[in-house]
Amino acid sequence: LTGVRRIGVDDVAALARGCAILGTGGGGEIYTGSLVTLEALRVHGPVQVVELSELDPEGLLLPLGMIGAPTVGVEKLPSGDEGVRLRDHLEVITGRRAIAVMSSEIGGSNGLLPVAWAAQMGLPLVDADSMGRAFPEVHQVSQHVAGRTPDLIALVDAIGSVVTLRAADGSWAERISRAVTVAFGGTAAMADYVMSVGEAHGVVIEGSVSRALEIGRAIGGAAGDPVAALIDVVAGVRLIDGKVVDVERRTTGGFARGSVLVEGSGADTGRLLRLEIQNENLVAIEDGVIRASVPDLISVVDTTTADAIATELVRYGQRVTVVAFGCDPIWLTPRGLETAGPRAFGYDFDYTPLEVLHAQA
Amino acid sequence: LTGVRRIGVDDVAALARGCAILGTGGGGEIYTGSLVTLEALRVHGPVQVVELSELDPEGLLLPLGMIGAPTVGVEKLPSGDEGVRLRDHLEVITGRRAIAVMSSEIGGSNGLLPVAWAAQMGLPLVDADSMGRAFPEVHQVSQHVAGRTPDLIALVDAIGSVVTLRAADGSWAERISRAVTVAFGGTAAMADYVMSVGEAHGVVIEGSVSRALEIGRAIGGAAGDPVAALIDVVAGVRLIDGKVVDVERRTTGGFARGSVLVEGSGADTGRLLRLEIQNENLVAIEDGVIRASVPDLISVVDTTTADAIATELVRYGQRVTVVAFGCDPIWLTPRGLETAGPRAFGYDFDYTPLEVLHAQA
Repeated sequence: LTGVRRIGVDDVAALARGCAILGTGGGGEIYTGSLVTLEALRVHGPVQVVELSELDPEGLLLPLGMIGAPTVGVEKLPSGDEGVRLRDHLEVITGRRAIAVMSSEIGGSNGLLPVAWAAQMGLPLVDADSMGRAFPEVHQVSQHVAGRTPDLIALVDAIGSVVTLRAADGSWAERISRAVTVAFGGTAAMADYVMSVGEAHGVVIEGSVSRALEIGRAIGGAAGDPVAALIDVVAGVRLIDGKVVDVERRTTGGFARGSVLVEGSGADTGRLLRLEIQNENLVAIEDGVIRASVPDLISVVDTTTADAIATELVRYGQRVTVVAFGCDPIWLTPRGLETAGPRAFGYDFDYTPLEVLHAQA
Repeated sequence: LTGVRRIGVDDVAALARGCAILGTGGGGEIYTGSLVTLEALRVHGPVQVVELSELDPEGLLLPLGMIGAPTVGVEKLPSGDEGVRLRDHLEVITGRRAIAVMSSEIGGSNGLLPVAWAAQMGLPLVDADSMGRAFPEVHQVSQHVAGRTPDLIALVDAIGSVVTLRAADGSWAERISRAVTVAFGGTAAMADYVMSVGEAHGVVIEGSVSRALEIGRAIGGAAGDPVAALIDVVAGVRLIDGKVVDVERRTTGGFARGSVLVEGSGADTGRLLRLEIQNENLVAIEDGVIRASVPDLISVVDTTTADAIATELVRYGQRVTVVAFGCDPIWLTPRGLETAGPRAFGYDFDYTPLEVLHAQA
């Protein structure tokens, strides 16, 4: 993986494709995020991409993204100045200067909007994120796995309200942030686990932006079989080729929840794979057997183009391939699994690695 | 009205009585608040009571109180250090020193707990509040009537979480604060419409602490008929003498809502008065006719002692007198009525002054 050094207008399509794959259905659909990012890069020029080690350790790092149900986000668009308002407020509160932006989650539009906000603010983007994918809950971030307390979270709505929060622990951070997000109307822009650059060393997941771009370019540049290219670049497992035959979706408690049923076709005829969703695809189950689960990534992609389909845009009749691939190793630590393994989402089973589940493949 | 200059252990009973009357059923029952305040005054000594004009205009004023459903507050007690934690957080955020405490609402335990917190912090208490009574919603304060925006609200729970909030307007302040309060478990300690002493001049309601003490002393010192003494000191109207024959109560959306039915006795035999409640007694209705309504004050008191009964403690069989009396004049301005008149609570009628409703009395 060679690190990207800047993101310009020409990189947005590939970045968006890669972020959609890493979003595992969540993080927000990439269409609007791409338009916002293209516009920001056209107006303000390319965004410099840096590594943490290049930055002043005393400076403030802004880990940014949208929080809320993607089913709401697809209708309730950001106002565009969320990044600036979060920065201005956080600089006053902390008395530190913000020197870089980071995506809190590299998945979906949350891998794109921070690029737009960085462009607007004239700040570099750090080649890192806090998840290496997308997760639905506020404390499902590498900072929490590293034992950091949520000392500073900030949320803004689209009309001028700002909330800052210090929570007793990660689960209170999730509970309070979610309540504020619902009060804001279902989505909010958030700076999650705000910290200095120095505090972020060894805590965030580095290389995430480069990885998203690499995945996006592999898919976009594939001559014959984009899905094969995707599976190759992520070292993934093809769970099924088929057709979406049922979608159940509800927006509740500030999340998009539901399930998707994929009926196999071709070599997979006769099979039925069910995906369970909380903003992201959490679990893939076939005949009562777990085929893949969080914290590993499960992406539903268009069988022809390998473009990932966001959970809020999955619909009956789509020809899809479901691909699973391994998560960042931090999620396989005891605290990582406690934070974002199957039991963290209420499932009564332990995580089993993909290579064990698919040893025969 | 002569201004009180300090509050010591010996003043708590009278202050509590007066605050309960001004609470119109809300602001939290006074039993726990009295114990907390007595303990704080015993440990830290009396609290100095000051007028705004005696304070440095540049200093930070802390308008403090509890928010949430009194039905929750009666079971979920404050931890005791809420005032200190709010002060510490607000001093960091504003860069100003807190120099005085004020009750956000003089009603119920919210007129007492700020005395305890002031004692703990060694700060004076301002002889003022933001309501002259108790109201259920965050923006039903004199600051909102004066056109101030909710630039700084802070909420703390009992276990270490802190939320600060700048809301787009008063109704968003209420909406977001209520969501946070519910996420906190149903109650929170709050600094509402935080401002400098200078900004508070002409905006808050002065003399509230003295008034509560005057009312409490009038009731407590009455030889023969405490209810008559109460009606005299507040220039009130006796709506009914009778017995509580029905109580409907539910805790929903962060509020205690319900109604109380009082059946007349003695000279009032045959009459039925219904009180409608949202934390506070909002409206008194008899045979479809409004007998009193917000923003005027409606207090349910024990017929023998004139002690006010909090809405969460009203129960079947209590012998009560319902007394109504006039609110602070700011609530009768167009913006005051818009903020806390009957229509602000969803009623489809306009405010009529008590002296018009009871012209024949």
